[in-house]
Amino acid sequence: MKKADIALIGLAVMGENLAMNMESKGFTVAVFNRENGVVDKFINGRGKNKSFIGAHTLEELVEKTEKPRKIMMMIKAGSPVDEVIEKLIPLLEKGDIIIDGGNSHFEDTERRTKYVESKGLFYIGTGVSGGEEGALNGPSMMPGGSEKAWQSVKPIFQAICARTDDGTPCCDWVGSGGAGHFVKMVHNGIEYGDMELISEIYHFMKVILEFSAEDMHRVFSQWSEGRLGSYLIDITAEIFTVKDEDGTPLVEKILDSAGQKGTGKWTGITALGEGVPLTLITESVFARYLSSMKEERAEASKELTGPFIDFKGEREEYVGRMEEALYCAKIISYAQGYALMREVSQKYNWELKFGGIALMWRGGCIIRSVFLDKIKEAFDKNKDLKNLLLDGYFKNEVLGGMESLRKICAICMLNGVYAPSLSAALTYFDGYRSEKLPANLIQAQRDFFGAHTYERTDFPRGKFFHTNWTGKGGNTASTSYNA
Amino acid sequence: MKKADIALIGLAVMGENLAMNMESKGFTVAVFNRENGVVDKFINGRGKNKSFIGAHTLEELVEKTEKPRKIMMMIKAGSPVDEVIEKLIPLLEKGDIIIDGGNSHFEDTERRTKYVESKGLFYIGTGVSGGEEGALNGPSMMPGGSEKAWQSVKPIFQAICARTDDGTPCCDWVGSGGAGHFVKMVHNGIEYGDMELISEIYHFMKVILEFSAEDMHRVFSQWSEGRLGSYLIDITAEIFTVKDEDGTPLVEKILDSAGQKGTGKWTGITALGEGVPLTLITESVFARYLSSMKEERAEASKELTGPFIDFKGEREEYVGRMEEALYCAKIISYAQGYALMREVSQKYNWELKFGGIALMWRGGCIIRSVFLDKIKEAFDKNKDLKNLLLDGYFKNEVLGGMESLRKICAICMLNGVYAPSLSAALTYFDGYRSEKLPANLIQAQRDFFGAHTYERTDFPRGKFFHTNWTGKGGNTASTSYNA
Repeated sequence: MKKADIALIGLAVMGENLAMNMESKGFTVAVFNRENGVVDKFINGRGKNKSFIGAHTLEELVEKTEKPRKIMMMIKAGSPVDEVIEKLIPLLEKGDIIIDGGNSHFEDTERRTKYVESKGLFYIGTGVSGGEEGALNGPSMMPGGSEKAWQSVKPIFQAICARTDDGTPCCDWVGSGGAGHFVKMVHNGIEYGDMELISEIYHFMKVILEFSAEDMHRVFSQWSEGRLGSYLIDITAEIFTVKDEDGTPLVEKILDSAGQKGTGKWTGITALGEGVPLTLITESVFARYLSSMKEERAEASKELTGPFIDFKGEREEYVGRMEEALYCAKIISYAQGYALMREVSQKYNWELKFGGIALMWRGGCIIRSVFLDKIKEAFDKNKDLKNLLLDGYFKNEVLGGMESLRKICAICMLNGVYAPSLSAALTYFDGYRSEKLPANLIQAQRDFFGAHTYERTDFPRGKFFHTNWTGKGGNTASTSYNA
Repeated sequence: MKKADIALIGLAVMGENLAMNMESKGFTVAVFNRENGVVDKFINGRGKNKSFIGAHTLEELVEKTEKPRKIMMMIKAGSPVDEVIEKLIPLLEKGDIIIDGGNSHFEDTERRTKYVESKGLFYIGTGVSGGEEGALNGPSMMPGGSEKAWQSVKPIFQAICARTDDGTPCCDWVGSGGAGHFVKMVHNGIEYGDMELISEIYHFMKVILEFSAEDMHRVFSQWSEGRLGSYLIDITAEIFTVKDEDGTPLVEKILDSAGQKGTGKWTGITALGEGVPLTLITESVFARYLSSMKEERAEASKELTGPFIDFKGEREEYVGRMEEALYCAKIISYAQGYALMREVSQKYNWELKFGGIALMWRGGCIIRSVFLDKIKEAFDKNKDLKNLLLDGYFKNEVLGGMESLRKICAICMLNGVYAPSLSAALTYFDGYRSEKLPANLIQAQRDFFGAHTYERTDFPRGKFFHTNWTGKGGNTASTSYNA
């Protein structure tokens, strides 16, 4: 009997769809699930008369898989992954590959890669993006871990993944250790930012411009043809066409309380930990938290009044301004996300290929957009680009549209309209492009109360000074140099 | 020979000053340091002819301390604390108390309290705020851990701590486990916010209003007499009087690159982890990160231009507006910080007394201010207050000053002036007071691409719906109810 090309553990919806995808590309897939009934049901149901091999124990699963074995876990992130790894290790042989396709934290994957490699095996942690439908028809895949295992896994991954219009697979080697799961995490953070930005523009359309759902459908449809063209803009345009039973737009009946699943907040936490100013995605995560405080907001809305809306602009002019503002903010959000990837890549020596990452996101996943081609081009021009805002194309686009972002943020602030991520985009931009920020006062304060010392603008970096700020004798400070 | 009332491990500057403080209040203090020379130097130097007992081993330290022993560590946070605990446990007897006065993460203190209690001992983790000078003359102290140990420690802590004007000690029992270190962490986060807000107002004064250092000294001095009266406003006023050798304001020679020591970022990370929208402090931490990217900013400033400053307001009018904006933003920052404390207190069952915490911060620490009395009053009126913005006093102050915060933020946004924390204050306020936010669109998107389901405004919470958004047959959606 032919052995399986790959084994898959976990037949929940993502695992099952991925198995179906693999089989449809000509691979024989061994499947196992903790609950045995699930395997039999699958083999006799959706998997009937296809190249699946059911296994009722991990031993059987391993036995029925061709060497070097590729054993892919599609299970809940966290301790279950460690438990399955522990069970697999004694069953596997040198050169076999354990793959984690779940939403694991990249630091866990970093640790597990080292651990599994220490046992003579290989480990791959791969981001799989695109939800159930992506898993079935072609997800964006971001594999990292033991690079020596990549050539064995590549034919399968690149057969099942999404492809760009020119046929390039949306899956390539990301880097060692936790690199794949890290890039997937940043992808999810960027997704939070994209969704929040669109929702703030929608809010502006509704509250300030008083657009109808038809207006909004028209505007988003128009934008989807241009540089904002993306899956999220497409589905947003479509959402506004959907009516409830009473004929009114369904979206307005939906409760404004958004859930989240953790990876967005991990991105913010990582940025805080690594010293990278990732303001926009973090505000997007906080915006979800605030949205979920629905009852408390309803209560507060009775106490805390705001200004009356006083908008004097032209509605049609603002269609263009909104497009510009959204594009600028999107550039800034990705600039922050890529800055985070750059920092963490250096820390872990992953040598992430930033252009390649943009390509992996180009198809199959929620943030797919024409915009990502521009990011690819920017890194093709300069692979060491420090910040997307310094690339010629993005710089010109941002400088062209920034006036609109400024106006829209100011209108929101003066009229009491919530736009935290648009505002975060703008304040970051103004901070990033400021040679001089007011942190000199913070350093003076820190030296005043805690003798933390400071550097000076007229001395080289690395020379630290302390001043006795309360020194007697008038206004003369006693400043001393601390080597 | 009389035994010591308390033992202290670690004679770095904070430990030494705290020991001096204790001795000056009539306590006999046994001291130990890993390097023996340090102890002898102290006993024969600064500690000469005072009630100190030197110890050269932990055994000796324990032996020379009165039962129940109070052994206080003033050492580097992290693994050194665990190591010293391990060494102390076998030397101590039932009822003895280990105290950690360093900047430990509250989750470590939570864990250590349980561990030390499991050995029949008591554990106290206490925040000590006020820097070197505070340690010597009266810090703000925030003790938590084994409540049964509090009565033994209280006479010492309340003798050495700062006091409010009416004599109330700025130290009281905070709660079990890591409560003390948690409150200290939030204190530090709030300190980051306060400093960033002041620096943004300074930036506005300098860049938009073109105030001189003398102007700024005058304005901050004036504010220090009013509701903004605080240590940080006082030292800021003083900083502007200090001249460099060439007679120009020293603060302008200081490099605008601010350092940070971790507790600010812990506050942001905790808020992200616990689902609390703590936007202002988080932006303050990110602002420090951005400030530290000095060279990259200098490079970016050559590429990314901004608008010319075009300010048409009256400078003196804006002195009042800045005061209002700063006060509003400060209220919002503390509202967020207290919301975080409320959430985490519930999670750990600490039953934090929020008014009492304001009192502990009233003296000895960096954020001491008259403002804290108002917080105390707010919680005296309603100990279950959900958010400071819902208290009558704060509500009126915020509603009175919000127009100024709106105008100043809008001016910054239109003129390209960096003000991320002021903006975060405003966007949070507008989000918090909005019964309706645009998260309904986010929920529609999530249901569209991932079948995440949504709740409806016209159904009770807890009923979840899914729509087939791309359903054929025109604009009619197929919506199903998911129990």
